[in-house]
Amino acid sequence: MRSALVVGTGLIGTSIALALTRRGVTVYLEDRDTTAVRTAQALGAGSMEPPPGRLDLAVLAVPPVHIGAVLAQCQQKGMAHVYTDAASVKAQPHQEIRAAGGDPATYVGGHPLAGAERSGPLAARADLFEGRPWVLTPSPQTERSALNLGLELVSLCGGVPVLMETAAHDQAVALTSHAPHLVASMMAARLEGARSEYIRVSGQGLRDVTRIAGGDPALWSDILTANAEAVADILDEYAVDLDRMITVLRAQRSGEEQVRKQAYADLEEMLSRGHRGHARVPDKRSSLPTEFVAVPVAVPDQPGALARLFASVSGVGVNIEDVRIEHSLDQPRGLVELLVDAASVTTVRRLLDEQGWAWQEEAPLV
Amino acid sequence: MRSALVVGTGLIGTSIALALTRRGVTVYLEDRDTTAVRTAQALGAGSMEPPPGRLDLAVLAVPPVHIGAVLAQCQQKGMAHVYTDAASVKAQPHQEIRAAGGDPATYVGGHPLAGAERSGPLAARADLFEGRPWVLTPSPQTERSALNLGLELVSLCGGVPVLMETAAHDQAVALTSHAPHLVASMMAARLEGARSEYIRVSGQGLRDVTRIAGGDPALWSDILTANAEAVADILDEYAVDLDRMITVLRAQRSGEEQVRKQAYADLEEMLSRGHRGHARVPDKRSSLPTEFVAVPVAVPDQPGALARLFASVSGVGVNIEDVRIEHSLDQPRGLVELLVDAASVTTVRRLLDEQGWAWQEEAPLV
Repeated sequence: MRSALVVGTGLIGTSIALALTRRGVTVYLEDRDTTAVRTAQALGAGSMEPPPGRLDLAVLAVPPVHIGAVLAQCQQKGMAHVYTDAASVKAQPHQEIRAAGGDPATYVGGHPLAGAERSGPLAARADLFEGRPWVLTPSPQTERSALNLGLELVSLCGGVPVLMETAAHDQAVALTSHAPHLVASMMAARLEGARSEYIRVSGQGLRDVTRIAGGDPALWSDILTANAEAVADILDEYAVDLDRMITVLRAQRSGEEQVRKQAYADLEEMLSRGHRGHARVPDKRSSLPTEFVAVPVAVPDQPGALARLFASVSGVGVNIEDVRIEHSLDQPRGLVELLVDAASVTTVRRLLDEQGWAWQEEAPLV
Repeated sequence: MRSALVVGTGLIGTSIALALTRRGVTVYLEDRDTTAVRTAQALGAGSMEPPPGRLDLAVLAVPPVHIGAVLAQCQQKGMAHVYTDAASVKAQPHQEIRAAGGDPATYVGGHPLAGAERSGPLAARADLFEGRPWVLTPSPQTERSALNLGLELVSLCGGVPVLMETAAHDQAVALTSHAPHLVASMMAARLEGARSEYIRVSGQGLRDVTRIAGGDPALWSDILTANAEAVADILDEYAVDLDRMITVLRAQRSGEEQVRKQAYADLEEMLSRGHRGHARVPDKRSSLPTEFVAVPVAVPDQPGALARLFASVSGVGVNIEDVRIEHSLDQPRGLVELLVDAASVTTVRRLLDEQGWAWQEEAPLV
């Protein structure tokens, strides 16, 4: 790939442009918002000049609802040999491309699973997609050359390509992103009228669980509408569980201890299901296989302490995948987290005990 | 306060003990779990030795369900002059104290709004409560001397005391912590049986929204059961909103465009309510008044660039409350966030324009 056009210079489009420019691709930028495209150019993401001729690839980083129309336009103008997008919904754009008279042969759908705390070009980073999954949804009409250029785009951006059917992709994001987004919004909405005294006594948990509710309502209305059926199916499942939770909590009013005990057991089982489901969520180190276990160990802040720790657990065929060190300046110790493959955990913990290291179970987040 | 007993050496108890020890208070530690208490002592949180006599304060950092019984025991043994706890539910413990024959006069309920990624003594930090709200719930029977010792505890730990009625506290945490916890668990539970291919294409959003679902199911069953009615009331409200969301999404199937348009508008309004509610959630810098606005500015990575930025916006009576710098090594620029009081935002942005700085609106999280 020598040249590319990026249509839409928000967070995703500008980040793709920065990544491609860094890898030596000549990038042209387009956006209805002239401030955004000027900012992207100022950041070194590419050029606002009109492209000299047909480019190798055009990336449409515009909202899902516009993909069909924008693609048809670009194809009619013959902007590029191959086209892809970055929309978080795939089935509807695929349909709209046909409806808008676009050519599915030179188009491969794409969805990089990456985001940032902030949107807009200023938040863009060339390494935004480093190690992140990037879904490609080739249709039966997609030419192999188009798919291969899509794969080249992903690797130039440092992403991990994942090939999926459009329907499977949309069910996946409904489960892991779209339905949770609506539910986070539902919880946040109940804060709008709440007494500020109540909101004041909140913690990190509320921030985390409502964070995505800060997303742009217009943008998310587009996304959710484009994936409405799959999202509604998940919400139906939530509604069943929510009713059960209410029933179980109300049962604590019962005069019969047996009823209260049963309700408590049901509640704990629901929370345990949530605990097991949470354990499947990929770690921030997205590359880390789930079969690794974290073992937190306290390490005195003394020269060579870490070396002694590794000496304690090494040389016995134990596979230590990764190490994280947490250290708080005000305290005379560090907390080191050893990531050990599940098979070796017992061995490692025994070794730690023998050598007198204070370790603990990977405790649940409370 | 010269001496204190901490019963329960988990994350909260050990952190309180570390904070008090650092401020010169003689701390004694107790826990049924001998490993935990030994770890806490090893971290310098206090002594496992039995207290020599009656201490100034006893802090019960045990699960809500045990507060009543443990307090009655401690009072019968005359362990301390004043007693408080750290449970996240307040009304039920207050009742159980009477039921267990405890003395409400020397007890003031407490709930520090602080947590950490991990539980257990190894995750404890002396500064865990720094700048965080710490609710105290004195009852009509609570002696002033007991309340004052509670206030002294909070200030020794660096917390911000908030006096509340027990019922108001429990409604507040139901809204901001307990109900969201159940809902996060509900979402996470649907991941247990999901295709791993689906979970693989998830991002930070799913991690954030399900994080609290990783909490200990047994501990949370206790908490939720102790606050069952208030939590169920919130879930009832959620259930209404959830049904509306499903209706609105299904309406996109309608053949009538007018119906689809109305449904889209309703969806956007729901998301907007969530957006407004989310805006009320306290910032991580919990001390930061909400009337401050963040203005992200791109700063070239050149010597003196920051100095030039501040020169550009200073000296005109503009109040810059705080500055955050995000910098990614692989890129020739940093992103600086100026926190400006709302009154000055327009001035600051005009100044930035005049001096040629690239800034953007505080964009929503997407």
